[in-house]
Amino acid sequence: MEQNKFIYEVRDFDLENDELMLNETLFHNANGYLGVRSNFEEGYPINLQSIRGEYINGFYDFAEMKQAEKLFGLTEEKQTMLNVADTQGIRLFLNGEEFSMFAGETLESSRTLDMEKGTTRRRVMWRSPQGREAEITIVRMASFAMLPLFTIEYRVRTLNFSGEIRFDSTHIGSVLNYCDPGDPRVAGETFQHILPGTAAFTDDVSVIVSHTSKSGLAVASAVKNQLSKPAVEKRKVRDSAALHQFTVSLAQGEEVTLTKYTVLCDSVRYGDCRGAALGHMHKAVSLPLKHWYRLQEEYLKKYWENCAVHVKGDDKLSNAITYNLYQLIQSVGKDPHSNISAKGLSGEGYEGHYFWDTEMYIQPFFLLTMPEIAKNLIEYRYTTLPAARENARIMGHKKGALYPWRTIMGKECSGYFPSGSAQYHIDGDIAYSIISYYLLTKDLALIARCGAEIVFETARLWMDTGNYSEGRFCINSVTGPDEYTCLVNNNYYTNVLAQYNLKWAARFYRILGEENLLSPVEKKLGLTEEEINCFERAAKAMYLPYDAALDINPQDDAFLSKKVWNLDDTPQEDFPLLLHYHPLCLYRSQVCKQADTVLAHFILEDAQALRTMKHSFEYYEKVTTHDSSLSTCIFSIMASRLGMPEKAYAYFGESSKLDLFNTHKNTKDGIHTANMGGTYMAVVYGFGGLRIKEDGLHLAPTLPGQWEEYDFKVHDGDSLIQVSVQRRGCEITLLDGTEKEIFVYGKSHMLRDSLRLPLEEWGRSQ
Amino acid sequence: MEQNKFIYEVRDFDLENDELMLNETLFHNANGYLGVRSNFEEGYPINLQSIRGEYINGFYDFAEMKQAEKLFGLTEEKQTMLNVADTQGIRLFLNGEEFSMFAGETLESSRTLDMEKGTTRRRVMWRSPQGREAEITIVRMASFAMLPLFTIEYRVRTLNFSGEIRFDSTHIGSVLNYCDPGDPRVAGETFQHILPGTAAFTDDVSVIVSHTSKSGLAVASAVKNQLSKPAVEKRKVRDSAALHQFTVSLAQGEEVTLTKYTVLCDSVRYGDCRGAALGHMHKAVSLPLKHWYRLQEEYLKKYWENCAVHVKGDDKLSNAITYNLYQLIQSVGKDPHSNISAKGLSGEGYEGHYFWDTEMYIQPFFLLTMPEIAKNLIEYRYTTLPAARENARIMGHKKGALYPWRTIMGKECSGYFPSGSAQYHIDGDIAYSIISYYLLTKDLALIARCGAEIVFETARLWMDTGNYSEGRFCINSVTGPDEYTCLVNNNYYTNVLAQYNLKWAARFYRILGEENLLSPVEKKLGLTEEEINCFERAAKAMYLPYDAALDINPQDDAFLSKKVWNLDDTPQEDFPLLLHYHPLCLYRSQVCKQADTVLAHFILEDAQALRTMKHSFEYYEKVTTHDSSLSTCIFSIMASRLGMPEKAYAYFGESSKLDLFNTHKNTKDGIHTANMGGTYMAVVYGFGGLRIKEDGLHLAPTLPGQWEEYDFKVHDGDSLIQVSVQRRGCEITLLDGTEKEIFVYGKSHMLRDSLRLPLEEWGRSQ
Repeated sequence: MEQNKFIYEVRDFDLENDELMLNETLFHNANGYLGVRSNFEEGYPINLQSIRGEYINGFYDFAEMKQAEKLFGLTEEKQTMLNVADTQGIRLFLNGEEFSMFAGETLESSRTLDMEKGTTRRRVMWRSPQGREAEITIVRMASFAMLPLFTIEYRVRTLNFSGEIRFDSTHIGSVLNYCDPGDPRVAGETFQHILPGTAAFTDDVSVIVSHTSKSGLAVASAVKNQLSKPAVEKRKVRDSAALHQFTVSLAQGEEVTLTKYTVLCDSVRYGDCRGAALGHMHKAVSLPLKHWYRLQEEYLKKYWENCAVHVKGDDKLSNAITYNLYQLIQSVGKDPHSNISAKGLSGEGYEGHYFWDTEMYIQPFFLLTMPEIAKNLIEYRYTTLPAARENARIMGHKKGALYPWRTIMGKECSGYFPSGSAQYHIDGDIAYSIISYYLLTKDLALIARCGAEIVFETARLWMDTGNYSEGRFCINSVTGPDEYTCLVNNNYYTNVLAQYNLKWAARFYRILGEENLLSPVEKKLGLTEEEINCFERAAKAMYLPYDAALDINPQDDAFLSKKVWNLDDTPQEDFPLLLHYHPLCLYRSQVCKQADTVLAHFILEDAQALRTMKHSFEYYEKVTTHDSSLSTCIFSIMASRLGMPEKAYAYFGESSKLDLFNTHKNTKDGIHTANMGGTYMAVVYGFGGLRIKEDGLHLAPTLPGQWEEYDFKVHDGDSLIQVSVQRRGCEITLLDGTEKEIFVYGKSHMLRDSLRLPLEEWGRSQ
Repeated sequence: MEQNKFIYEVRDFDLENDELMLNETLFHNANGYLGVRSNFEEGYPINLQSIRGEYINGFYDFAEMKQAEKLFGLTEEKQTMLNVADTQGIRLFLNGEEFSMFAGETLESSRTLDMEKGTTRRRVMWRSPQGREAEITIVRMASFAMLPLFTIEYRVRTLNFSGEIRFDSTHIGSVLNYCDPGDPRVAGETFQHILPGTAAFTDDVSVIVSHTSKSGLAVASAVKNQLSKPAVEKRKVRDSAALHQFTVSLAQGEEVTLTKYTVLCDSVRYGDCRGAALGHMHKAVSLPLKHWYRLQEEYLKKYWENCAVHVKGDDKLSNAITYNLYQLIQSVGKDPHSNISAKGLSGEGYEGHYFWDTEMYIQPFFLLTMPEIAKNLIEYRYTTLPAARENARIMGHKKGALYPWRTIMGKECSGYFPSGSAQYHIDGDIAYSIISYYLLTKDLALIARCGAEIVFETARLWMDTGNYSEGRFCINSVTGPDEYTCLVNNNYYTNVLAQYNLKWAARFYRILGEENLLSPVEKKLGLTEEEINCFERAAKAMYLPYDAALDINPQDDAFLSKKVWNLDDTPQEDFPLLLHYHPLCLYRSQVCKQADTVLAHFILEDAQALRTMKHSFEYYEKVTTHDSSLSTCIFSIMASRLGMPEKAYAYFGESSKLDLFNTHKNTKDGIHTANMGGTYMAVVYGFGGLRIKEDGLHLAPTLPGQWEEYDFKVHDGDSLIQVSVQRRGCEITLLDGTEKEIFVYGKSHMLRDSLRLPLEEWGRSQ
């Protein structure tokens, strides 16, 4: 990592398979609509693996998911994100010698991500086997200004020779998705999902329209190549592939640039995707590339202005925050047809599926910094509400909606339901994010139009799932966030969230009633006062497991009676446990993949005494492996909350470096977007102590010992607030908007211009 | 059903698909080694389905079992029973007109199973489309005297015409298994498991040697046809098929018989299976068919002498007992390479797998009537003990053996582990059957040679699975017999059986020690006194759930806190529930597929007060659907035990008629062998009140109101005992062997010659 926080660079990297594939992910270009892995234009030798792919967010095919034993209602067809085309191919010939970093000699090389410019660059000083030397610089961009546009600017300078330079630029429609039958986290089989049409040139734009095999979708890829010098050109098409060849003569020291424009338009967004692709291409090439670079920079300037977390101290970790935030804006969908997948658009891990990651790990960032994106994520869930209702029926519920555990366009895509569909907490997570959105933005219009309907329907689901037992409302046979303990009764996280969901269903009912906004949704759903009363009664009677002897909240009814997994004696190579132990073996033990009760304590801290949360933290910390990437950030936040700053910083470190340091060893399959949001949360919710509560915004800033200072900005209603934390105290500034009440270290303050307060040891002082 | 109990016959049966396939099962021929479905020799028209198959017990191939999501240790390859060849084909031509019951006119038809002769017969009076009438009689036999031998005796008599009669007898090596992608209980896909070699005639015997695609096994099928008259013969082979054609002229009223011998020899039992098949064929045809019929009758005479249950009254149900017992001897393996599969050798349901059905439902019958077969079933489990150890390692256990939930040769073949591998009670079931075998036979040699090793290794598994919690030994995350409630903590059935298993491991340790038989197994397993003490301590501390308010044993820790499924309001077409509700929906409710705690009370009745068992029976009866075929027989036994004779008889009725009346609507896929054993148990353990206990044999005879009398014989050590029950009392006679103490209605009696006692109302009187 460079000193400059907005640059991430690797030099003279290894040409080993693992590192190559890792860099394909780390340097991918995306804009929330399309994503292109950072594959070498010229490819690798045949003996090296590559995940070569270009993806569109929300564009999918159906794929068969065979169940070893057929049981009623199991998912047998999933939606899967597709590799749509290969427009990355550019082969370079220097007087007939083909460029490859695996031949000749690489004198220098670097790969650079510039997060202010929004481009990646590969630079190679190369000596051919016959001794020709050239400098090759390749700049790539997924445009934020024109979402269907991806560009490659490929510059060659001859160093010690003159002669013929040839580019073979390809556009290939026949592509496959990556598969690895041995890894549960990527697709296990290859299938020809994309059926490409014949490639054809329209003027000098090659176009291929491909159809999915089952989902009835289509995508058009258009490619145009421009050379900076007059050249001999050849164009060829064969089946679903197009070749555009340029041959030009260079003097020694001269340079030439090939600019390759790719436009990808799908039928989800565009009625006539071929027409749309040609239209976008026309617009893209009508302006110089510099224009698009400038728009890219402007977009990011605004982004960083609002969203950056500035840190002084411990560059390695703090710069990783910037990297992570950059990936979030690259990954998040910008229309209601898409969301943000577990791996963004950087790879095929989890097949492009959206999980609860969105609501619990990523949405908080966007809610605080770009509320319109948070709103869009809610709209996406509303679009898929009918599918969630259908899913609830499959699961045997007579009423309510159950959101799928993983999906692209709303259909449940989890194959193993005990750690998939059984994670009913997804309903509570979505409701929670809507409530947070409302608390921060007070956007009652969105609640009336779609938010409340989701909250009502998820509340109904809880009513249909749970039952009263000895006067307590119990929720049986569900799985909490911790996937090492499946199908349990009264998971604390699930129950406390269901309680919140039920309570807020009643709240929204009354608020909308008072504002005369209730009638449409009340009629649509056939809501009655009586049903609302049932919600309230169940919320009140909700059973929240509590163990008096330990003063903790047990993760579920049975957790504490199981044997404690001996983590100390578990060999290092046995982690993550899920790859080395049968699920039953894990389920039978006190061992957690990730924060579960600890997460519940973070999001709903007022449900328990601080003391209970502290005891719980200490208890669960001992049995948690953090095999999930969603875990350390939450432990960091809660360590901050509970007055354990060193621990908080250590967990923050784990979280922030996860992808850049490939600590989970699977970043080749894509970045971990939830963890990236979690890194932000570890700073803002953790060190900053931010909470969104009914009475307003809460802050409780602390400063890690490793840092000199940090600052961030958040939206609160119509206000924009900056929080700066230094050793000598914190400064909270109203940058924009009206004055408002905020809470710092639990005390109310009226924020007019600026507040300066000394730092307190919040978690300890309470 | 005919008056004669040993005849089952249907006349003028429908040629509808359902009935045809049902009869393929009900009239199948088997001998425990091979089984042949009762397909029409001439086949059905193309629009009708048939499960046409010939199977060998324990002969299998590996089949891929894809998991929708890959998790560590899940089964991805199963063993599956194969259809090995088609030697049933005989086409008949009357002056060129081909016989088919679907053409011309069937004037009379019947299918008959003669359970004394051990043969089936199809008789048809047929008029061809052109008016030729013939009587066709086909007798089939799977020989008990020569297990690889199956015969078809095909007789034709011309009635109103003379002319040319032609038989085309085929032998086909290229066969597939049946599949139905929609039914979880049979294979979902077709795969060419059998790779047949080229057919060839050796003299007039056609032989095909086929190899399995993956398991490395081979099978030879040999066929020989003999005509009762000189004929023009033709033989042809093409690829893996052989045809033997006979053409003969008959006068009106004359008859001709084709005898077709099939021999199937596999490489599991025979080194050179081709040589073995030819050798067996040579022996088979060297004696007239009548000789084999006579041996068949003799074998069955002996079988019925020992095993029959004679009943007077309610012929419909009581004759079904005979049918069921006949199927057991047809189904059970007679060598240690095989066991008894859930469908015997009558069909492909459950793919020929062996389950706990063997130990808990079928072995009791053989133990009492043919102890050498019970012994053989234990030997089979011993043969697969190394595989059970391996399975325990896969499941994360450091010691002990975990038997597979379903298997052919020892490998776990369940695809969905929550209702498969998680049924750890299989270990207890096997231990229980070994203990029962010992208690009845006192065969300590078998215990020393293999029984104790199994009991020790299963005891170790419990130690490694369970843990102490608050001083109680708990067993978490397992599934009990009831598959509508999976992955639970402290399933009563599992725990009480584990307790018994642990207790008896210690017992066997001491008994073998006293008899100087311990040393080999002690050394082999590295057993220590200390470990035995741990067994005893855990057995003593075993947690057995008990609810004082209801005075019942809850099925598991959480069962009673779940909502009660409303069975009254569940539409009839929703049964069995597993085909209409998502597993989670079932798991979340108080609803049982089958006897679970009630079964525990039957097998270990001394663990609870009679009162508690009665309350439990009443409680579980209300929430049990009996969607499993293993349920009603147990409810019948316990109803007898608890003094509810009418209820006992009603459940017995459900059990006894299950296959003959096709009440579960899937008998086409094969008979339900466990239920057949269960029918026997409902009589002998239920009405007869038999129990095998440490102090000896217990009886408590009752007489159902619908019956006049019944009797049965049982072995007890070296003694053979007959129990006759009549309205005026029961008579217990020592037919053979030494005098011994038995218990009748709880009171000790010395059985010398005969005991006559009045009937008591046992369950009520206690």
